[in-house]
Amino acid sequence: MRTQIALARKGQITPEMEKIAQKEGLPPERIRKGVAAGQIVILKNAHRELCPVGVGTGLRTKVNANVGTSPLNPDPEREIRKAQVAKEAGADTIMDLSLGGDLPAIRKEIMRQVPLPLGAVPVYEAAMTALRKEGNMVAYTAEELLAVIEHQAQEGVDFMTVHCGVTREALPFLRQAKRLTGVVSRGGALHLDWMIQHGKENPLYEKFDEVLEIARAYDVVLSLGDGFRPGCLSDASDALQFLELVTVGRLVKRAWEAGVQVMVEGPGHVPLDQIEGQVRLAKAVCGGAPFYVLGPLPTDIAAGYDHIAAAVGGALAAWAGADFLCCVTPAEHLGLPTEEEVKAGVMAARIAAHIADIVKLPGSRQRDDGMARARGRLSWEEMVRFAIDPELFRQRKEAPAEGPCVLCGTLCPMSTRRLYQELLTGREENEPKGGEP
Amino acid sequence: MRTQIALARKGQITPEMEKIAQKEGLPPERIRKGVAAGQIVILKNAHRELCPVGVGTGLRTKVNANVGTSPLNPDPEREIRKAQVAKEAGADTIMDLSLGGDLPAIRKEIMRQVPLPLGAVPVYEAAMTALRKEGNMVAYTAEELLAVIEHQAQEGVDFMTVHCGVTREALPFLRQAKRLTGVVSRGGALHLDWMIQHGKENPLYEKFDEVLEIARAYDVVLSLGDGFRPGCLSDASDALQFLELVTVGRLVKRAWEAGVQVMVEGPGHVPLDQIEGQVRLAKAVCGGAPFYVLGPLPTDIAAGYDHIAAAVGGALAAWAGADFLCCVTPAEHLGLPTEEEVKAGVMAARIAAHIADIVKLPGSRQRDDGMARARGRLSWEEMVRFAIDPELFRQRKEAPAEGPCVLCGTLCPMSTRRLYQELLTGREENEPKGGEP
Repeated sequence: MRTQIALARKGQITPEMEKIAQKEGLPPERIRKGVAAGQIVILKNAHRELCPVGVGTGLRTKVNANVGTSPLNPDPEREIRKAQVAKEAGADTIMDLSLGGDLPAIRKEIMRQVPLPLGAVPVYEAAMTALRKEGNMVAYTAEELLAVIEHQAQEGVDFMTVHCGVTREALPFLRQAKRLTGVVSRGGALHLDWMIQHGKENPLYEKFDEVLEIARAYDVVLSLGDGFRPGCLSDASDALQFLELVTVGRLVKRAWEAGVQVMVEGPGHVPLDQIEGQVRLAKAVCGGAPFYVLGPLPTDIAAGYDHIAAAVGGALAAWAGADFLCCVTPAEHLGLPTEEEVKAGVMAARIAAHIADIVKLPGSRQRDDGMARARGRLSWEEMVRFAIDPELFRQRKEAPAEGPCVLCGTLCPMSTRRLYQELLTGREENEPKGGEP
Repeated sequence: MRTQIALARKGQITPEMEKIAQKEGLPPERIRKGVAAGQIVILKNAHRELCPVGVGTGLRTKVNANVGTSPLNPDPEREIRKAQVAKEAGADTIMDLSLGGDLPAIRKEIMRQVPLPLGAVPVYEAAMTALRKEGNMVAYTAEELLAVIEHQAQEGVDFMTVHCGVTREALPFLRQAKRLTGVVSRGGALHLDWMIQHGKENPLYEKFDEVLEIARAYDVVLSLGDGFRPGCLSDASDALQFLELVTVGRLVKRAWEAGVQVMVEGPGHVPLDQIEGQVRLAKAVCGGAPFYVLGPLPTDIAAGYDHIAAAVGGALAAWAGADFLCCVTPAEHLGLPTEEEVKAGVMAARIAAHIADIVKLPGSRQRDDGMARARGRLSWEEMVRFAIDPELFRQRKEAPAEGPCVLCGTLCPMSTRRLYQELLTGREENEPKGGEP
C-alpha cells in the first residue's frame, strides 16, 4: 500500500491529487508538492470510494461538522440526519463522535448515506466498550485500543483523532498548571485516566509505530489531538499546552518518515490577541502540517451563541494559517445540538473560512464581487445565486425581482432613478442601466 | 449652555462623568480627561432625563441597535417593540432610522418607553417631508434641514448622524471610482442628489457652524456620517472613502473648537486584512475621536447571517480601537428585521464587543473566568449567572443542577469522579470538590 504522501514524494500525481487540483483550481503539481512536503493532506481512506478532500496550505479552508450520539438515550437516526444536514449546509467533512448505541453501525450508516470524508476518535469506542463490558471506561488494554483503530481503518474511516501527545511526562505539570477548567478534551481525559489506572505510558505514544503502520496500510490521515487544549481563556498558552505541542511536533516528523499523512489539532478557548501567535507557533513547531482548530473561542460566556464566538476566532485562526475549522454549534457547552443548530454551526464556520480565504487565497473574492455587482443592479434573482445560503436568501428577501427592498423603498441609494447615479456610472441615454454584466 | 466637553476642559467633573465613571469602574478624573480631549463622548441630550452613556477610549465597547419604520406600510408599534427588545438584549443605545409614518411621534414614543440614548438621522426626516409635500425627496432647503436638526435636538435626541463630509469636491471622483456598489449610504446618497439638483454645496458642510451651534445648545453629540463608505469589499479603501475621511477629520477639529462633542462613523464592507488599518487611520486622521462602525462586514455573501460576519469584523475593529459597534441583523441586505433578528444582531455585536474588551480593557475577563470556574465545578446554576444570555442558557442546557450534561455523560472530562482530577486539583480527602469558590 502506497500512501498519497509516499506517492507524492516519488513524483507521482495520483487521481486523488488531480481531483483536488480541479476542485481547488490549482495545478496538480502544486497539490503533489504540498502533499509530499506534508503541508497538504488528502482525506480519503484508500479502501473507500469517495471524492477526496484536500486540507492544507494554499487550499480553500475546510469545515468539519461533528455529529454523534449521547451516551444517554442515544438516537442514531437523528445523528445520521444531522450528518446529512451538515452536508447540505456545505460541510466538507463529518466527524462521528458517537458515544452511545452500536458505534460501528452508526459509522457505517453515515458513510453509506453521506459521501464525505469521515473522521472518528477510536479511544471513545474503546472506552465505551470497556464501560459496557467491565463497568470501567479505562479497562481497555493497549492492544484493544489498537484493534479498534485497525477496525475503524478497515471500515473506511478517513481520518482519526489520536491523542498521542498526552504523555506521562505531563502528569507532574497537571497540579502546578492551576487551570480553571483543567482538562476539557474527552480523549485527553481518557488517556490520563488510563495512564493513572494502568501505571503505564499512553499506548498511542508508546506504540506510535504500530499506529503509524495501521494508518499507512489504509492511508488514514492521523489527526494529532490536543488533549491539553485550554478550556477557558485563563488556561490558554500554558505549559501543559506547549508541552503537548512539542511532543506532537516530534510525532509529525515520525509520521512523515513512515510515509503517513498527518495533521495537527488546535484549541479551544484562546483570547483574541493570542490566536495568531498560537496558530503560527503550532505551524512552525509542526513543520507546516495542516492545522485543524476547534473554535478557537475568544470568550467563555457566549454559550447559546458559541457559533458566533467561534466564527470570530476561526476567521482569525484561518487568516493566520489554520487550514481546517471544526464547527462549533450554538449548543456548545449546553448539550447535544439539534439539526438546526448543526446547520447554524456549519454556516458560521463556512462564513469564517470564507472571510479568511478572501484575504489569503487569490480569486476567493469572485463570489463577493458577483454579489456586489448584482446588488448594484438591484437584481435579486442574481443575488440569490451568490448568497452563501441561497435558499434562506430567497425565502427571507422582502423585495420585488428588480428594485428596492422594503427597508429603504424610495430612499434606496442603489436605485438607478437617483440623480447621482449618472455621475457614478457615467452612462449614456441608450446604455443598459446598472453597469457591466 | 455648557457642553460636557466645555465643562471637562474647565476641569469640571459633571454628574454625567461621575455616573459613567461608576458604570465603567474608572476614576471620574479619567472620564473628564477623555471628554476634554475629545476621546470620550457622553451621549445625553442636555434637555433629556437619562442615564448617560460614555463612548470612547478606555471605556467598554458600546453597542447600538437600529430600529425604524419602512416607508412602505410603516408599523411604528413594531419598531417601538424592537427598541424594547434591543434594550432587553443589552444594547447601549438605539438609533431610530424611521422613514414612514409620523416620524416625531415615533421618536417621542421610543424616548418615552426606552430609556437609552437615542440617535437619529435628521436628513431622513427632511427628505421624507419633502417627498410627501413636493413629491421630491431633495426638495428641502438648507434652512429646512437645519430646522429639522434643531427640532430633533429640542425633542431630546442624544446623537445625530450628519453626513457633512459628502461635499461637491467628491463629485468628479464618483465616476472614476468605478465602484461595484457605488454609494450605499442613504444619507450620503440624499446629499449627493441634493447637491446635484440644487447646484449648491452640502448644507451640512457649508453651514457646519450653524449645525455646531444647535449641537452645542442641546449638547447633542454629532456623529459624522460616512456617506461614501464602501458597500462591498471591492470598493473598500478607495479615494472617495479617504477624501471624505480627511474632510471629516477637519470637521472634528472644528467641532472641538466650538465645544461640541463629536464622533466619527466608519464602514461598512472591508476585507479582514484592511480592518485594523482602516480603524487606526480613521482614529489618527480624526485626532482620536470615538469611532463608530457599522460592521465592518468582511464578506459580501453572508446575507441571512450578516450578524455573524459583522461579529468577526466588529471584534477586529473594536480590538483595533473602534469604540462603538452598530448592530447588523440577519436581515441586513434582505429587508426589515423582525424582533428576533434585532435581538440576534444585538447579541452578536455584544459578543464581538466583549471579545475585544477582553484584550483591550483590564478586568474585562472577570466574567469569563467566573464562567470557567463554574464549568470546572459543573455548577449549572452558577453558569447561568455568567452567561451572556442567562435566559437562553437556562432554557437550552441539558444537564442536572450539578454534574455532566447530556453530551458526554460518564465521559465528561470535568467530572470530579475522574481519576486524573486528583492530579489537577491536588485536593485532599476532606477538601471541598472542584477548587476555590
